[in-house]
Amino acid sequence: MTRAKIINFLDSSKNKITPFSIDSVEISGFMGEYLKTMLEDTIPSQYKILEDSGTLDNFRIASGKKEGSFRGMVFSDSDVYKWLEAASYALLFIDNDDKQLKEKIDNTIQEIRDAQDKDGYINTYFTFEKKKERWSDLATKHELYCAGHLIQAAIAHKRITGEDTLFNVAIKFADLIANTFGLDKKRGAPGHPEIEMALVELYRETNNQKYLDLAKYFLEERGNGYASTYKFFNPEYYIDHKPFKGLEEMTGHAVRMLYLCNGATDIYLETGDEELFSTLEKLWNNLVTKKMYVTGGAGSRYDGESFGEEYELPNRRAYTETCAAIALFMWNYRMLLVTGDAKYADLMELVLYNGLLSGISIDGRHYFYVNPLEDRGRHRRQQWYECACCPPNIARTLTSFSGYMYATSKDGIYINLYEKSEANLEFGGKKVVITQETDYPWDGKIRVNISTKGDNTFKVFLRKPSWVDSYEIVVDGEKISKNTEKGFIEIHKNWMGTHEIELDFPITINYLESHPFVRENLEKVAIKRGPLVYCAEQADNKDGDVWNYIIDVNGDFEQENFEIGSKKILKLKTKGYVKDLKDWKGKLYKQLKNREMNTKEINMTLVPYFSWANREEGPMNVWLRK
Amino acid sequence: MTRAKIINFLDSSKNKITPFSIDSVEISGFMGEYLKTMLEDTIPSQYKILEDSGTLDNFRIASGKKEGSFRGMVFSDSDVYKWLEAASYALLFIDNDDKQLKEKIDNTIQEIRDAQDKDGYINTYFTFEKKKERWSDLATKHELYCAGHLIQAAIAHKRITGEDTLFNVAIKFADLIANTFGLDKKRGAPGHPEIEMALVELYRETNNQKYLDLAKYFLEERGNGYASTYKFFNPEYYIDHKPFKGLEEMTGHAVRMLYLCNGATDIYLETGDEELFSTLEKLWNNLVTKKMYVTGGAGSRYDGESFGEEYELPNRRAYTETCAAIALFMWNYRMLLVTGDAKYADLMELVLYNGLLSGISIDGRHYFYVNPLEDRGRHRRQQWYECACCPPNIARTLTSFSGYMYATSKDGIYINLYEKSEANLEFGGKKVVITQETDYPWDGKIRVNISTKGDNTFKVFLRKPSWVDSYEIVVDGEKISKNTEKGFIEIHKNWMGTHEIELDFPITINYLESHPFVRENLEKVAIKRGPLVYCAEQADNKDGDVWNYIIDVNGDFEQENFEIGSKKILKLKTKGYVKDLKDWKGKLYKQLKNREMNTKEINMTLVPYFSWANREEGPMNVWLRK
Repeated sequence: MTRAKIINFLDSSKNKITPFSIDSVEISGFMGEYLKTMLEDTIPSQYKILEDSGTLDNFRIASGKKEGSFRGMVFSDSDVYKWLEAASYALLFIDNDDKQLKEKIDNTIQEIRDAQDKDGYINTYFTFEKKKERWSDLATKHELYCAGHLIQAAIAHKRITGEDTLFNVAIKFADLIANTFGLDKKRGAPGHPEIEMALVELYRETNNQKYLDLAKYFLEERGNGYASTYKFFNPEYYIDHKPFKGLEEMTGHAVRMLYLCNGATDIYLETGDEELFSTLEKLWNNLVTKKMYVTGGAGSRYDGESFGEEYELPNRRAYTETCAAIALFMWNYRMLLVTGDAKYADLMELVLYNGLLSGISIDGRHYFYVNPLEDRGRHRRQQWYECACCPPNIARTLTSFSGYMYATSKDGIYINLYEKSEANLEFGGKKVVITQETDYPWDGKIRVNISTKGDNTFKVFLRKPSWVDSYEIVVDGEKISKNTEKGFIEIHKNWMGTHEIELDFPITINYLESHPFVRENLEKVAIKRGPLVYCAEQADNKDGDVWNYIIDVNGDFEQENFEIGSKKILKLKTKGYVKDLKDWKGKLYKQLKNREMNTKEINMTLVPYFSWANREEGPMNVWLRK
Repeated sequence: MTRAKIINFLDSSKNKITPFSIDSVEISGFMGEYLKTMLEDTIPSQYKILEDSGTLDNFRIASGKKEGSFRGMVFSDSDVYKWLEAASYALLFIDNDDKQLKEKIDNTIQEIRDAQDKDGYINTYFTFEKKKERWSDLATKHELYCAGHLIQAAIAHKRITGEDTLFNVAIKFADLIANTFGLDKKRGAPGHPEIEMALVELYRETNNQKYLDLAKYFLEERGNGYASTYKFFNPEYYIDHKPFKGLEEMTGHAVRMLYLCNGATDIYLETGDEELFSTLEKLWNNLVTKKMYVTGGAGSRYDGESFGEEYELPNRRAYTETCAAIALFMWNYRMLLVTGDAKYADLMELVLYNGLLSGISIDGRHYFYVNPLEDRGRHRRQQWYECACCPPNIARTLTSFSGYMYATSKDGIYINLYEKSEANLEFGGKKVVITQETDYPWDGKIRVNISTKGDNTFKVFLRKPSWVDSYEIVVDGEKISKNTEKGFIEIHKNWMGTHEIELDFPITINYLESHPFVRENLEKVAIKRGPLVYCAEQADNKDGDVWNYIIDVNGDFEQENFEIGSKKILKLKTKGYVKDLKDWKGKLYKQLKNREMNTKEINMTLVPYFSWANREEGPMNVWLRK
């Protein structure tokens, strides 16, 4: 198999830092286990579900190979495309002799090719009698969204296999779209953004300006009512209430908004339009200071799957769709590449280890669409969803994780994320091997080995996680003290030969409180150990209902390893109290009594938020009464 | 004008207690002012809006008098019917020489008569090309809901005026419906309950069993999927997931569920089906112990306008639709009539003075559809809504309020609700005049004068409000001590001549806390003075943001009268603290600090919840940090 240069999207020359190929890094620790699960469980089981659910059959029906009618949601083609993207990444990590996955990919692509119309149009919902409805409802029918995922999958597949079977399908469709839409053609903008990212990447892949222009066109049409022609929701839901440039508040459907921010950042990366970037910065600040969960989740409301008002962050009814976490992860990655600022990588870390990984079970076969921070035990991961956007989205994110870890600039190499791994990179035209020995995210000690042949002087930029106050750094046995620049610790030297950097980020357990306007978190704390947010889950706590737990914020923590499935999990034990509810029997409200608390001292156990709901059902909460 | 016996619905002989006519009581206090507002402002302004919005024109278009097409929501006919019901009640209280309102009513009825089809069908949405869609989507198209409101309005109009102009329209339509639906006819059940109440009342009015049978049929069809044929929402939304009998939890669309409970109680009142009543009691208990706001609001979620899980009672995103409060008020009235238990009248009081009256502005011309318990100041009453179910629903409730106050049984007369008023009732075939001198709900002192001619021995049942612990009662100058029976204080004597009962329910100010599973109310209290829930509104508080207020639960209260519009309002002043947020600038989460609270002592002012949002915009909250 020919392996082209496989960038994790964003092969732009205009960014401040540039990523390395996905296959340049081999991961073997915490995220390495997830990758293994992807290869062994997630990718195969998702393929089976795409087959069983009729999602693949939709292509066979469209091409006339099979009788029947379209099944599933109007955008179910995109599930296949996302799976193809994930499966293509997976090819990088499986044994070359294992032909099974490649065959599944090839067969799937063949079905797609056969289903494409002569003019390039492809969407299995808009076939037969629905053909006449093509492009008639961009607001809700997701044609351009599906097209975007087709293009992204096609680029990944081409870069990995060197084949253009799927790429040619994508190009034909992209050309049809470019011939259809524009200021002097049919006016329109996608109800659900996604194609913007894809078109910019297609521009990068082909160097054909028209794709970039089309992405810009779609972005700039927003605010004119073309994206919200279907009025079940108001224009804000579609982020079509105002022009994108100039927005200051994250509103509307969270995934749509965040995908749009991704596309807009891609457009900025290619155009350098500073007004666009200033909008993106404002939106980012609004998100992280007013509208983001402590888990990195985004989107507060079930109603419209949308952002709430500022500080509106309900725990039990948090919507925090897994796709929104993925979108936030991708967006911060783009912002990191633009700026080289570690604050964006920090947010990638927060989202990844908490609100994103909570979207998939430890066994890699069950998913959350919605990720609450508080639950009575009814909310459980499902094998699939009728609206199945999240499961293959997780798969494509976790199979490409290694590509997010490193980046390079003219000055040196950036380590954005820590994970036990071996990376084969390059700087100054010379090979640079970087290994990380670490038990991150459980432990903050990271031994980074760097080796390169011949003189090679450059900076190594090591991200200082934002949860770290003071830390130790030893380079080749010598303890050094370094300030950070945009959140990165810079080490500038000639790396010829082999060198060792020992990082020791002390993992502390912190009690976090939230802004008092998040009124339901008043008098409560969230527990964070390093980058991991913890929660109290009933499965570990037999001494009363965890919803009645009160944590002693002056208590100590004991730490203990155990396993869920085969995943090592570190649990925390601390002191607290449980409130007896006998006074409350049959009552919802009663007169305040003078503090006779009816509390009993207990030991409570906390587990990482990402690991909840992998055992028996029961109450869970992140924000603990103090 | 002939005045027939005007019962506030429920002219059933099978209930434990039976109401008196609406026009038997003249109210002149707190609710009397609302009645005055209804007559002078609400009813006329609503008529104008029905005209301006095209809602009345829909009837003219349907009858061919006017060109054009249907405007508004599919159920907008019901707005006209609710207004007609309210306007009919209003006729009881206006000067007989004032013909204006009667003319408006007559003209409106004429438009309705002219719009009715020969076969009896009437719904202005399903006309012309939509005619073929009649009865095709009972789940969402509200034909039976509109029919229910037509019937209710027609009965009220007939009872008040003695005329059958509207009643004949209703009968024709009801007969068409009875001929259309049934086990051996077209199967179906309304997506939105309402017609059940109306059909039972029509049975009471006509003594025609088929209407009662039809109501029972519609109730019993639920759980078979006939009410939820349109699957945008799941069957639970329509309360069609299970048969009604046997339900134990309040779920689904709150107004639908509560209207259904009303209809089911009406059916129980006529059939005595004990299994039905046992279901109703379970649902009532589930509501009041797990799913009701402290204001008497019901329905926690915007998503599906529905009940949440148990103890899911968000404040900022409380949905608590005004129509749900009205439905709860009506349902508790029915349960009171069934049982003679004051706990239901207590809930009527709670809902009325808080979650229901909050739905209308002091000026009587602006309405809330949604009634949050916490807000940043964006939520304001509107002149009307596209979905305008609530405004005329408030009007018909407040114009008929006097009918809810008294009831009678074979043993005596019940005083369910207190208000300054004069009632002309009867017992044992003899006239009984009861006056209440009181400033209720501001004050708990009520002087009840009872006079009747000749020997007339019966019990007077005086409701002891549930917020009262101990109280004094003086009968004809003699202090007596009485226990309550089902929450009523019974006084048994010969009332010949004139007698005076002095009730003194001490109005205390209580701090309420909520069940700890309502996790966002932890460490917070709500303030209730007598039956009124208070809130902190920014308009009265200049010393920092009310969202940062901490109340001193050992503080005293000062009380002060002021006016909003011309409405006398009693405000409360107490001590508290305001938290300084300077540490929080630009942060959403931060490490817990040792208690340096940055608080400043302040005086805070609280106003009744029903009166909020009548002045300048600003934050408001009911649950105050303690």
